[in-house]
Amino acid sequence: MKYDFDAEIVEVSPRDGIQNEKTILGLDAKLSLIDRAIAAGARRIEVTSFVNPKRVPQMADAESLAAALPRGAARYIGLALNRRGFDRVLAAGLDEVNFAVVLSETFSARNQGMTTDQGIALWHEVGRAAEGRIGTGLTLAAAFGCPFEGDMPLERMMDVLTRALDVMPAELTLADTIGAAVPVDITRRVAAVRDRWPDLPIRLHLHNTRNTGFANAWAGIQAGVRSFDASLGGVGGCPFAPRATGNIATEDLAWMLHRSRIDTGWNVDLACAAASWLETQLGHEIPGMLMKAGAFPPAPRTT
Amino acid sequence: MKYDFDAEIVEVSPRDGIQNEKTILGLDAKLSLIDRAIAAGARRIEVTSFVNPKRVPQMADAESLAAALPRGAARYIGLALNRRGFDRVLAAGLDEVNFAVVLSETFSARNQGMTTDQGIALWHEVGRAAEGRIGTGLTLAAAFGCPFEGDMPLERMMDVLTRALDVMPAELTLADTIGAAVPVDITRRVAAVRDRWPDLPIRLHLHNTRNTGFANAWAGIQAGVRSFDASLGGVGGCPFAPRATGNIATEDLAWMLHRSRIDTGWNVDLACAAASWLETQLGHEIPGMLMKAGAFPPAPRTT
Repeated sequence: MKYDFDAEIVEVSPRDGIQNEKTILGLDAKLSLIDRAIAAGARRIEVTSFVNPKRVPQMADAESLAAALPRGAARYIGLALNRRGFDRVLAAGLDEVNFAVVLSETFSARNQGMTTDQGIALWHEVGRAAEGRIGTGLTLAAAFGCPFEGDMPLERMMDVLTRALDVMPAELTLADTIGAAVPVDITRRVAAVRDRWPDLPIRLHLHNTRNTGFANAWAGIQAGVRSFDASLGGVGGCPFAPRATGNIATEDLAWMLHRSRIDTGWNVDLACAAASWLETQLGHEIPGMLMKAGAFPPAPRTT
Repeated sequence: MKYDFDAEIVEVSPRDGIQNEKTILGLDAKLSLIDRAIAAGARRIEVTSFVNPKRVPQMADAESLAAALPRGAARYIGLALNRRGFDRVLAAGLDEVNFAVVLSETFSARNQGMTTDQGIALWHEVGRAAEGRIGTGLTLAAAFGCPFEGDMPLERMMDVLTRALDVMPAELTLADTIGAAVPVDITRRVAAVRDRWPDLPIRLHLHNTRNTGFANAWAGIQAGVRSFDASLGGVGGCPFAPRATGNIATEDLAWMLHRSRIDTGWNVDLACAAASWLETQLGHEIPGMLMKAGAFPPAPRTT
């Protein structure tokens, strides 16, 4: 198969995928998940978040997990929401810190316990402290809508980004944290960011809450985005966003892109197998579709 | 809210949506479903198929249903796969016949019990017989892939269509019967058909089997398509296509389009309520997402 170009899928199941699950996965299960993701093609993985374990118990083992990772097999990302989290990512020796600033004040207060401006100031501190020591990504959370405030005007997004990007990350992620975006939103916001900061790589973090996640990913491809967060089996949800549901499923995204002559480097069959394994670990059905329907075209028939 | 343009959603839950359900809905339940769809905004509904009741027991009441429809409230479509089916649609006094020709030989044999060429010949007979008596739609089934044969080359599609369209229907539906399409497939096939038959209205019939249904709908919009089949709650499946899953969900599609400034005439809240009612009737969870997540933006908070 000849591909037209490449796109990257950043695997987020170990962090965003399972953070809201009632079943706490043990360290061995998390490492097995990461191993399976790597075997299936993951080359960048958000492995955990360095947050308050009382608020997100699933992430309480962040340091132990980081210490046990198979180094060199993939680039490992740790999420941080404040200075203490950043210091922990740094101490854990991960490859990248993903720092999140929230576009909506209400969601910022509930999720991060700070205002958006405080988040921006912290990003500046963290971004500067990271220089020469660790890769950086900045995520703008609720970039397409807030579960409490509703629509987030484009003007506000550009204003917040303009101030935040006084310190530049290696990559900016626009996050549709609650699956509020439709394709035109992706088209417009990505274009606005690319117009203003043409050299800044953009990643999209999409949830399939209202069935638009894959349409939004495709709109992202059309807008020139070449990196996407996704989770095996489409697991996911946010503890502080009511009724937020899964990330777009890694294997479904990979299949859609491969069929579109865009290579992700993932093996769809192995990704489906990893998703099925994860489903068993979690003990309930998960949203991925390809793991149920099978890839198309079907395997050549032997009978 | 100001819209840029309109698009139509043809409700297919009473036919494609429930034909594969184990629970046989009674006539009253089907009429209630149709009433709820109309109340939510449906103006064209595929209400039943006129097929062998031994093969599709859910559709055994086609004539009784047709006789009890609230005439004038919407345009009613009946599916036919052969001459006998067409005669029954005509006798039932529906507004339109939807006649299906299958692109792949294997699927045509299994689903229709005939070759594609026999299907084309029958369409010619039916299309001519329909003239001046009933509206016509032609559906090309498995237009993007076959569960048995895999990929369906564009050249074959154009060859089959060229021969079929010796008799023109009022509208051509390209059906992704098994959810095999990705957006570029929609883009290319719609463009090929529009290039050759620029005056022929195109409808898309999409399944969300592999999570690409809504991305494909959006690709259809971008390609100029303005009519889409969908089912409340995303119910659906085909008795003769292994592991085929639901149509794209009406309420999810309507929400995506409205948020994109495209009016469908549907009321999303009423559509969600109708989908929830249908879920109760069927006795199992159905795939629609908006009925679970709620529309965005959320209703204004009162506290």
